[in-house]
Amino acid sequence: MPADIFIERIFKNDKRAVSRAISIVESGNSNSTELLKELHKNIGHAYRIGITGPPGAGKSTLTNQLTKYYRKHDKKVGIIAVDPTSPFTGGALLGDRVRMSDVGSDAGVFIRSMATRGSLGGLSKKTIDAADILDAAGYDIILFETVGVGQSELDVARAADTTIVVLVPESGDSIQAMKAGLMEIADFFVLNKSDRPGSESAIVALRTILMLRDHTEKSWMPNIIKAVASENIGMNEIADEIERHQSYLINNGLLKEKREANYKVRIKEIVEFLLKNELWKSERAESLEASLAKVVEGETSPYQIAELLFNNFKSSIKH
Amino acid sequence: MPADIFIERIFKNDKRAVSRAISIVESGNSNSTELLKELHKNIGHAYRIGITGPPGAGKSTLTNQLTKYYRKHDKKVGIIAVDPTSPFTGGALLGDRVRMSDVGSDAGVFIRSMATRGSLGGLSKKTIDAADILDAAGYDIILFETVGVGQSELDVARAADTTIVVLVPESGDSIQAMKAGLMEIADFFVLNKSDRPGSESAIVALRTILMLRDHTEKSWMPNIIKAVASENIGMNEIADEIERHQSYLINNGLLKEKREANYKVRIKEIVEFLLKNELWKSERAESLEASLAKVVEGETSPYQIAELLFNNFKSSIKH
Repeated sequence: MPADIFIERIFKNDKRAVSRAISIVESGNSNSTELLKELHKNIGHAYRIGITGPPGAGKSTLTNQLTKYYRKHDKKVGIIAVDPTSPFTGGALLGDRVRMSDVGSDAGVFIRSMATRGSLGGLSKKTIDAADILDAAGYDIILFETVGVGQSELDVARAADTTIVVLVPESGDSIQAMKAGLMEIADFFVLNKSDRPGSESAIVALRTILMLRDHTEKSWMPNIIKAVASENIGMNEIADEIERHQSYLINNGLLKEKREANYKVRIKEIVEFLLKNELWKSERAESLEASLAKVVEGETSPYQIAELLFNNFKSSIKH
Repeated sequence: MPADIFIERIFKNDKRAVSRAISIVESGNSNSTELLKELHKNIGHAYRIGITGPPGAGKSTLTNQLTKYYRKHDKKVGIIAVDPTSPFTGGALLGDRVRMSDVGSDAGVFIRSMATRGSLGGLSKKTIDAADILDAAGYDIILFETVGVGQSELDVARAADTTIVVLVPESGDSIQAMKAGLMEIADFFVLNKSDRPGSESAIVALRTILMLRDHTEKSWMPNIIKAVASENIGMNEIADEIERHQSYLINNGLLKEKREANYKVRIKEIVEFLLKNELWKSERAESLEASLAKVVEGETSPYQIAELLFNNFKSSIKH
């Protein structure tokens, strides 16, 4: 298919074209750069929402219900699941992707799970590339579902316009979340499964921790919304809070600022990716390979080999 | 303090010197490279054990008990905790580091928690640098405790000689572990809290999943060891299994192979780190900053800016 027809199909939200485009960026091959450049002129309309939290907090169920909510309000929803513990991701073997099938068959919903593993890394780069494709295809809302443990997963959540941290009223849960860095990235919290015992004390604990934070520079105070996603309770309140946060960002000129900050991280990642490709061309990869036995024997150190390779790279560019 | 005296003190396991050395590698300042080069000639004696698994599996308790076991056998133990959900890490505010105090005051034990956050990344690089320092200081056993969710955390666990995945007999736990990539890295499993209901069926489920793996090339089949770490049950069996795996690696020439593979990953990381430092010197950092507004406006794409910066970097090396 000629490139312009392919691009046109993506703009028209032809799901097969969208799916193929995401596969292209996921594979990281050279076509992906051209594709993303072409799509870029059509993006910026979708609102991006990160849904994160510890494993078992019910993020998938919440994503599912929130999707239904937005569908009722005629918004097209793209879902990118990058949670290694989520039933959307890596669950093909056991067939539990089925759980999402009620929204998955809807023409206004696109679901994609992204592999969280792979030696090349670049998880957040690929995830955001995929979001750009969905944005260009006309999805109004993009939901990133990602487990809130691990640096790259946090990076994904942080790349959203509004980041929701989902917790459950279990002992120490909010404290764990704080340790894992979830407190800093939350624009608001959802206390899911809030019909369970301990719900009120979890809210008290969470509020206490929130008050410990430094608020001097921030005019936005994260709220705590109660929900029972499995029974579709709290979705209105969550959607309202997302809208309230969106308005806050827009009215204070912060949406642009936040998106600029996200682009900064992303451009850095792309440049580093290009550089690594050039760095690990065969000659240096082979020379690295040849040095390993000596490092294990203690004849030379990893840092000495690294310096040699670094200097070799620089002189290869010079000539 | 002159560098040679400092190095001598590390070799003599002066805890203050060891602690300072780890702070130097953690800060990533330029002294760290020289320090690690000096220490490298004295390393390779410690046996490195990764302890990983989902949050709540009892990794810290197990690390604690295993440490006591090795102390009884006159082995010096260094612990590096990189688990954002662990009480050792980031728990200073709430004072729950106390939990480890029974081994922490022992002269033959060194505990260090490493920050899992920080915009520079490089978690596994710093963690392994810290392990090298403990190795050079004469610790016989190095335990890495890390949560098994997230790419960089998996990288830490993978950098060990023997990797233990700790699970609990809760429904779906082993399946979650498989999805999160824990199955591939486990040299053996510990089913902790195995006095809880569901223990036997968890073992059956885990065995089933293990049998689904491709074993054609591997002569090592991961075992499942039952334990109740909080009651000090199963530590002998775990230590025996570690020893059995160590012998297997040594007798088949695989320990050297594994360490070579780990050094390869590490050297790559160091070279990339050096390169990034040069890449993001002020001029390019400023030019990136200046382009962000245009990207948000859709005038240019992140990929176009990335290419410009990449080319600028190459020509700066040429001249």
